[in-house]
Amino acid sequence: MIRNRHIKLAAYLVGTGMHVASWRHPHAQADSSIDIDYYKRLAVLAERGKFDMVFIADSLAINEESHPNILNRFEPITLITALAGATSTIGVVATASTSYAEPFNLARQFLSVDHISKGRAGWNVVTTRDLSGNTALNFGREEHYDHTFRYQRAEEFVDVVKGLWDSWEDDAFVRDKESGRFFERNKLHRLNHKGRFFSVQGPLNIGRSRQGHPVLVQAGSSASGQNLAARTAEVIFSIKYNIEDAKAFYRSLKEKAAAFGRSPEDVRILQGISPIIGETEEAARATQKLLESLITEETGLRFLADYFKGVDFHHATLETRAADLGLDRLPETKADYKKHQPVIARENPTLRELYSLLTGSFSDDSLVGPPEKIADTLERWFTERAADGFMIMAPLLPDGLADFVNHVVPILQRKGLFRTDYDSDTLRGHLGLPIPPHRLALSENKHHVEKTLTSRHRW
Amino acid sequence: MIRNRHIKLAAYLVGTGMHVASWRHPHAQADSSIDIDYYKRLAVLAERGKFDMVFIADSLAINEESHPNILNRFEPITLITALAGATSTIGVVATASTSYAEPFNLARQFLSVDHISKGRAGWNVVTTRDLSGNTALNFGREEHYDHTFRYQRAEEFVDVVKGLWDSWEDDAFVRDKESGRFFERNKLHRLNHKGRFFSVQGPLNIGRSRQGHPVLVQAGSSASGQNLAARTAEVIFSIKYNIEDAKAFYRSLKEKAAAFGRSPEDVRILQGISPIIGETEEAARATQKLLESLITEETGLRFLADYFKGVDFHHATLETRAADLGLDRLPETKADYKKHQPVIARENPTLRELYSLLTGSFSDDSLVGPPEKIADTLERWFTERAADGFMIMAPLLPDGLADFVNHVVPILQRKGLFRTDYDSDTLRGHLGLPIPPHRLALSENKHHVEKTLTSRHRW
Repeated sequence: MIRNRHIKLAAYLVGTGMHVASWRHPHAQADSSIDIDYYKRLAVLAERGKFDMVFIADSLAINEESHPNILNRFEPITLITALAGATSTIGVVATASTSYAEPFNLARQFLSVDHISKGRAGWNVVTTRDLSGNTALNFGREEHYDHTFRYQRAEEFVDVVKGLWDSWEDDAFVRDKESGRFFERNKLHRLNHKGRFFSVQGPLNIGRSRQGHPVLVQAGSSASGQNLAARTAEVIFSIKYNIEDAKAFYRSLKEKAAAFGRSPEDVRILQGISPIIGETEEAARATQKLLESLITEETGLRFLADYFKGVDFHHATLETRAADLGLDRLPETKADYKKHQPVIARENPTLRELYSLLTGSFSDDSLVGPPEKIADTLERWFTERAADGFMIMAPLLPDGLADFVNHVVPILQRKGLFRTDYDSDTLRGHLGLPIPPHRLALSENKHHVEKTLTSRHRW
Repeated sequence: MIRNRHIKLAAYLVGTGMHVASWRHPHAQADSSIDIDYYKRLAVLAERGKFDMVFIADSLAINEESHPNILNRFEPITLITALAGATSTIGVVATASTSYAEPFNLARQFLSVDHISKGRAGWNVVTTRDLSGNTALNFGREEHYDHTFRYQRAEEFVDVVKGLWDSWEDDAFVRDKESGRFFERNKLHRLNHKGRFFSVQGPLNIGRSRQGHPVLVQAGSSASGQNLAARTAEVIFSIKYNIEDAKAFYRSLKEKAAAFGRSPEDVRILQGISPIIGETEEAARATQKLLESLITEETGLRFLADYFKGVDFHHATLETRAADLGLDRLPETKADYKKHQPVIARENPTLRELYSLLTGSFSDDSLVGPPEKIADTLERWFTERAADGFMIMAPLLPDGLADFVNHVVPILQRKGLFRTDYDSDTLRGHLGLPIPPHRLALSENKHHVEKTLTSRHRW
């Protein structure tokens, strides 16, 4: 299939952009995180750019130090439903956590959006990292579930959801007005799941969609996260700061998927990048510097002191270098720090740059510059199998996405690396992913398959 | 306010209509319960009719005997989000249960839809009746929560949700690019709720909407249901089959609301009706008879045998009269039967008619006929204070709603009983309901109020 050899593109939509100070930029609309017309314009822009999908991240709690774009924002499932209505072709992917929801409710909502969007929905499965320290407290618990527990629960949660999505066979609804038979009773299936975490009988009160199931997306970077992704995800989203790490991750995940009996072609790996595009190298650098200059001393240092507990920031300013405070050689106790430590050691950033990095916006040299340079970087990562595509996490919105659509996409199209128009109208179609067959269509012995599926999680 | 003296109208949208055999009618689109374009057309039709709101009911489980319209249908919150995008002015109300969800998640989704719709959302609070016998089994429980427990939980659930909706004061977000101050820290409030059922710290990661909070809708008919409604609901939805019962309910609910310190004007009571409209009385009767004739013996008798367990239906047909099986004088063990028993005793319906009644579609004589007759009935109920308005639960869709919009609404408008155009663009505005002040704006002693609110549910 020719389309499998194209770069896949996702647009990460979040208010004024990934950069923590982006809302202060002169081009930013400071209340955009809660402006539905703004989000609709971004989705239409991404669709004009022939992107595969727009993507909405999430968290379940905030505190006073949270990124301004997440303090007051739309809930992702309702947001992608609205974005589906404002577009016609692009996929819409929402993040939802397996840690504080019922699988029946989530299965229902995602399949509902999939029908509403006519086969364009995706679910980004997360177990929720507790960045704010408040998550558990919003859900009747004192402590957030630990990492191991969360991933064990997530494995079972995803299986239950997929099972519920197959409550009805594709041709179950005959709707024969003449005979009065609305559906075929033998094509309605209860899941009868009884596992360690969940007991869910079913059936779900909604049938399969045009694309069978919503597309499953994940971003697990830990061992158990990669395991869940390799077993169940169809799109895997990762952030690596150099091509060698990205290639190693890509190879490893494809192998892991194969070990689960899956075709490596059925797993798309997208690298998250934060390009800063300018007419010239200098113009792009200036945008980057401007964003960093908008970080206030107070906000930046308060965040860092909270992040690096035990380190003394009293005499630091945002121009202090990370190594001067020993931040390049702390014990690797925090998952996040572990991920960033190599970059900190290599670049010895100022605290200003470090703050940008830790809050999710970091633009590697190869991704700051004119459109041709960005396109060359993407081409290299794609052709060297460091990625099947990219999640564009623009530091500044809408500028970053508009620049990418208007200036980088046409270059990728001229290079033959990206579609010039959609050749399908479902998210699976864009991604070149197969429609998952109904679980009972996999075997002639339906009874046997049902039993196997439901006993997987008995402990 | 003049608009308070107008009839309020809600359109109950459900696939091919309330009647259990409606999907077999020649005018019915049999797959409409899962066709988003169909639902959008219905919402646009209701908006053309200047209705206050469209309304989506729900259940959390199905079985083989369920109404065909609920076997394969949209989840309500995602559905109203889509309908908000297809309309500009009408309110959109979704049902969601307090029994199997987290208050933080529901609070978030409803406030999100309220922002997406720019102040047109409402939440129909239900505790979920277990009509299918399967509800608990979809949520890891063996038995559905009992009635008393459900309502105690619902009382606290609603208070938590309302508290979360006030996490941010209206002017909390200053977004001052110059100073770098995004919000005022003293206008962000944690709920710190610790009660019998829930511990929820907050804050919610979304601020108040144009209408303050989504509108709260309820339909409790039991004593505890009425209590919850009188204390918290802004729209109360009820089904009474004669004007005297409706007047008694209306008076009683308004008094109960007053006893909670609320203005009776701040509670709108809508009666659910299933009119059948024809050019002539005979044409309307023919539609009613056609719908009833579409019930199959097998389906109808199986449902009734399941509903009236212990009664022998072996020698019955759908033309058998209820009294011949003693169905007018059974012990009142079932809440549903208790509600319908007076109608059964009075009308002695055939089993065919009884089946229509029990599955939610019953059209009183005064509501079957030409548009003038329907309008006269509504006028009488409205002016005699049996209702502030009506929920139109058409037995057959889209016909029933189209007939009402095209033929009954103009008569109500000529009578001066109904708006000729919208004079607001929020659901609260249409209903003449006040914007709820922020809970901390109620008192100068903020600390005191917060403590009172959170200790209400300590047991």
